[in-house]
Amino acid sequence: MSAEGTLASTIHEEATGEAGRRRRPGGRGGDRTRKSHGPSYLNLTNTRPKTELLSADQIEAIHNASLTVLEEIGMDIMLPEAREIMKAHGARVTPGSERVRFDRGLIMDMIATVPKEFTLYSRNPLRNVQMGGNNLVFAQVASAPFVSDLDGGRRTGNQKDYRNLLKLAQSYDIIHTTGGYPVEPVDIHASVRHLDCISDLIKLTDKPFHAYSLGKQRNTDAIEMARIGRGISMEQMEREPSLFTIINSSSPLRLDGPMLQGIIEMSATNQPVIITPFTLAGAMAPVTVAGALVQQNAEALCGIAFTQMVRRGAPAGYGGFTSNVDMKTGAPAFGTPEYMKAVIAGGQLARRYGFPYRTSNTNAANTVDAQAAYESVFSLWSVIEGGGNFIMHSAGWTEGGLTASYEKFILDVDLLQMIAEFLRPLDVSDEALALDAIRDVGPGGHFFGTAHTLARYENAFYSPIISDWRNNESWVEAGSPTAFDKASKVAKSVLASYERPPIDPAVEEELDAFVAKRKEEGGVATDF
Amino acid sequence: MSAEGTLASTIHEEATGEAGRRRRPGGRGGDRTRKSHGPSYLNLTNTRPKTELLSADQIEAIHNASLTVLEEIGMDIMLPEAREIMKAHGARVTPGSERVRFDRGLIMDMIATVPKEFTLYSRNPLRNVQMGGNNLVFAQVASAPFVSDLDGGRRTGNQKDYRNLLKLAQSYDIIHTTGGYPVEPVDIHASVRHLDCISDLIKLTDKPFHAYSLGKQRNTDAIEMARIGRGISMEQMEREPSLFTIINSSSPLRLDGPMLQGIIEMSATNQPVIITPFTLAGAMAPVTVAGALVQQNAEALCGIAFTQMVRRGAPAGYGGFTSNVDMKTGAPAFGTPEYMKAVIAGGQLARRYGFPYRTSNTNAANTVDAQAAYESVFSLWSVIEGGGNFIMHSAGWTEGGLTASYEKFILDVDLLQMIAEFLRPLDVSDEALALDAIRDVGPGGHFFGTAHTLARYENAFYSPIISDWRNNESWVEAGSPTAFDKASKVAKSVLASYERPPIDPAVEEELDAFVAKRKEEGGVATDF
Repeated sequence: MSAEGTLASTIHEEATGEAGRRRRPGGRGGDRTRKSHGPSYLNLTNTRPKTELLSADQIEAIHNASLTVLEEIGMDIMLPEAREIMKAHGARVTPGSERVRFDRGLIMDMIATVPKEFTLYSRNPLRNVQMGGNNLVFAQVASAPFVSDLDGGRRTGNQKDYRNLLKLAQSYDIIHTTGGYPVEPVDIHASVRHLDCISDLIKLTDKPFHAYSLGKQRNTDAIEMARIGRGISMEQMEREPSLFTIINSSSPLRLDGPMLQGIIEMSATNQPVIITPFTLAGAMAPVTVAGALVQQNAEALCGIAFTQMVRRGAPAGYGGFTSNVDMKTGAPAFGTPEYMKAVIAGGQLARRYGFPYRTSNTNAANTVDAQAAYESVFSLWSVIEGGGNFIMHSAGWTEGGLTASYEKFILDVDLLQMIAEFLRPLDVSDEALALDAIRDVGPGGHFFGTAHTLARYENAFYSPIISDWRNNESWVEAGSPTAFDKASKVAKSVLASYERPPIDPAVEEELDAFVAKRKEEGGVATDF
Repeated sequence: MSAEGTLASTIHEEATGEAGRRRRPGGRGGDRTRKSHGPSYLNLTNTRPKTELLSADQIEAIHNASLTVLEEIGMDIMLPEAREIMKAHGARVTPGSERVRFDRGLIMDMIATVPKEFTLYSRNPLRNVQMGGNNLVFAQVASAPFVSDLDGGRRTGNQKDYRNLLKLAQSYDIIHTTGGYPVEPVDIHASVRHLDCISDLIKLTDKPFHAYSLGKQRNTDAIEMARIGRGISMEQMEREPSLFTIINSSSPLRLDGPMLQGIIEMSATNQPVIITPFTLAGAMAPVTVAGALVQQNAEALCGIAFTQMVRRGAPAGYGGFTSNVDMKTGAPAFGTPEYMKAVIAGGQLARRYGFPYRTSNTNAANTVDAQAAYESVFSLWSVIEGGGNFIMHSAGWTEGGLTASYEKFILDVDLLQMIAEFLRPLDVSDEALALDAIRDVGPGGHFFGTAHTLARYENAFYSPIISDWRNNESWVEAGSPTAFDKASKVAKSVLASYERPPIDPAVEEELDAFVAKRKEEGGVATDF
């Protein structure tokens, strides 16, 4: 046993029997202390130099190839109204078909007016988020059809779990925005689901939120509800974007009707539109990462250019979601080496145009095990190196997006908080260099009880939510809990102590009245 | 359910029922295909720009503070012979005490002759490793007192497990060297343990290995056995370093007798010595990361300077092991945000002097769960950003170094291989940009069956050992296995197919004769 082993062992002995004095589940990241520590995770930035995975020439090669795709192959634009707008701006629409081609000059002219940075406003000004630049914004898992927790297992999305997941999102300041419906509550009829869901987003959280682009009426309802939630005029709402939408292209090279309608409604009112091609290399995109990036870039540039055709200067974002599939089964893979490279190169492309960059915290694990953790941390590693600004699915995403997990949410909150601490600059002041403390202790002593330590130990280090550092004896006595078990306990304690954020009663009344009226009107048609 | 969800779901459907055609456990990283794919993981490099966490001024502040520590406070040098050598080179030895102080000029003069890069030779030339520069060398877990696997649980180290872990190390080319005894075989008497263990290191693997510095005789035996293993003369052995030792300082500011003796024996014969202070912030080092780095740097510079006093130009390495402890219990913590910063700043310090940089893949988890994975990937993230050259404990380390885990070894091999793939440059050739494939498929098609895909799908993406990407239905049918379960299966199949690397019978005979002779002589005294 080497000195490394011996010393580790010694320290472990010193720790024996101390387990009882350990912080309760939740720790610094937990509900109890969130109120004091949470705010430190607002307005996060990543000021580290971003990784240049590809040379400037290689980025230009992808850029030029993607413009060639739009010029020579074009995209299928599956909405007549959108084709008309594109035609009016000089795009080449093939008569009697959905195919539209775009000269490179047109694309570059259009995207030139996209803001490099913008603020997404919330009903609580503390929760406003800045998009683009060095800003780092984490959004909760979105759009999972299933939900799971350790006790209840995997089940179809429903309103109760939907609301619980919103409460979890509200409980941690590291979660800066919700990202849509964390799970799809299919027990609410589709015609009125958006009304109940958005009402919950406004009441159960005070963070910025997302509107699905699934038909014009849903977008206009969402915009009106966001306006009511903030208690402002439509004019102010247009000056202060308060609602975002994620637009997925139907890769390869298609934008469908509802998505195009969403761009029209949201951009027209100056609300942020994030274009995210779903380019899985080997399935909906070429099997090479570079080829998938060419297609991702073409589809993103087309959608972003369209936002500017609708309204010059409307806020927009560049979404990167390129990953690979398991070529043996076709199953999507996430958090892979290929995913990491695509995320970092995607960041270079977004910065080339000056777009805010949207990425994700992904994994394809079926449970909250080592795989879920390493695929997530690999994802986040590339997100930070790649300069991601807006990180969708930051917490709770499992199974390639099919399931929202209570425990994965807690685990991810811990991972995100550790990354925030990692990005915090290191103190190298004279006091931190600690020459006097080293002199006081001298060879062979130890620092547990020194004044330098006692003055700092409370907040010297990040206290994780999940990590169990007890020695083996104490851990076995405690029933050998895994990180999954610990996360389950924390999720319950956080939900038990959830408090609704304050809301102006007049605003709540107006919101309820709007929902009631729209329900009387039958909500929206669901036959598209 | 958004388009992202819908598309993911679609792909999952396509994957249903394909589970049967999935690769068997082991995959690309497994034993069966290692022989063909393994060599691609030899001679790894990390050519990415390294992260400059601290400014040049901040690095100089740590550098200067550490030289002040050596000049004003000094170190306790717990071996008269070592104090004599230091005194002869101009160090200030306090009469009648172990305290030695070093003028900054003496330290800087001594370390100037440390080679920036050197080769560590093995009995199989394919396995030689290059230390320093952009080279990336992964060593197996070392020095754990306990061993565990899923079936057998946690137990005291023994020869059977020791040998099994060596066989696992031999089975993956991503493991470039062993790192010592993966687990301490306490069922072999301490007086002869090093003879049996080194004999196994030479016979069961053909990779470079480590000798513990636990007394002069053990070092001289190890050097002689390494010479015999390579079948070379002592002169050639001195020209071609073939055995390394890790020297841990007894922090704070002490080097004990056996460690100093190890430096004397190893450096005198030009074998690599890696100095690794064990500076846990808040315990054996200041509670501030910057202060712990000052102490780490002082202790490392002292040990490395001593290697040059013993023999000018002898190969040496700078070890960074600074982490924090849980201030509530004193338990050591690894893979934390503080650990990550210390690893990256440590790399800046090592590069400031041009030393090869030794780091580690750490975690403090009690089982192979999400915590074990995220603490490890956070560690490896900082190792790559920090430019680590020689990564000790790369595979199999759990519980802060107390336990070597079969399953964690397999999991880590997968993580290391994913990092190697991540570091592989992205192909941005015209063929990779895939304009023709995108043109052929066009809007709305898919790429599964295209010529571009068929020509590449076999090796397009890394096939993980552990990751289970089956859809939920297939995964549940398979018994809902976790990554821990999968790793257990793989470990067994790899051990079942282990083959001893070829060895010259004459060499084996000479080695056995030496071991027999030394055992007759009683091995080494164990009373120190």
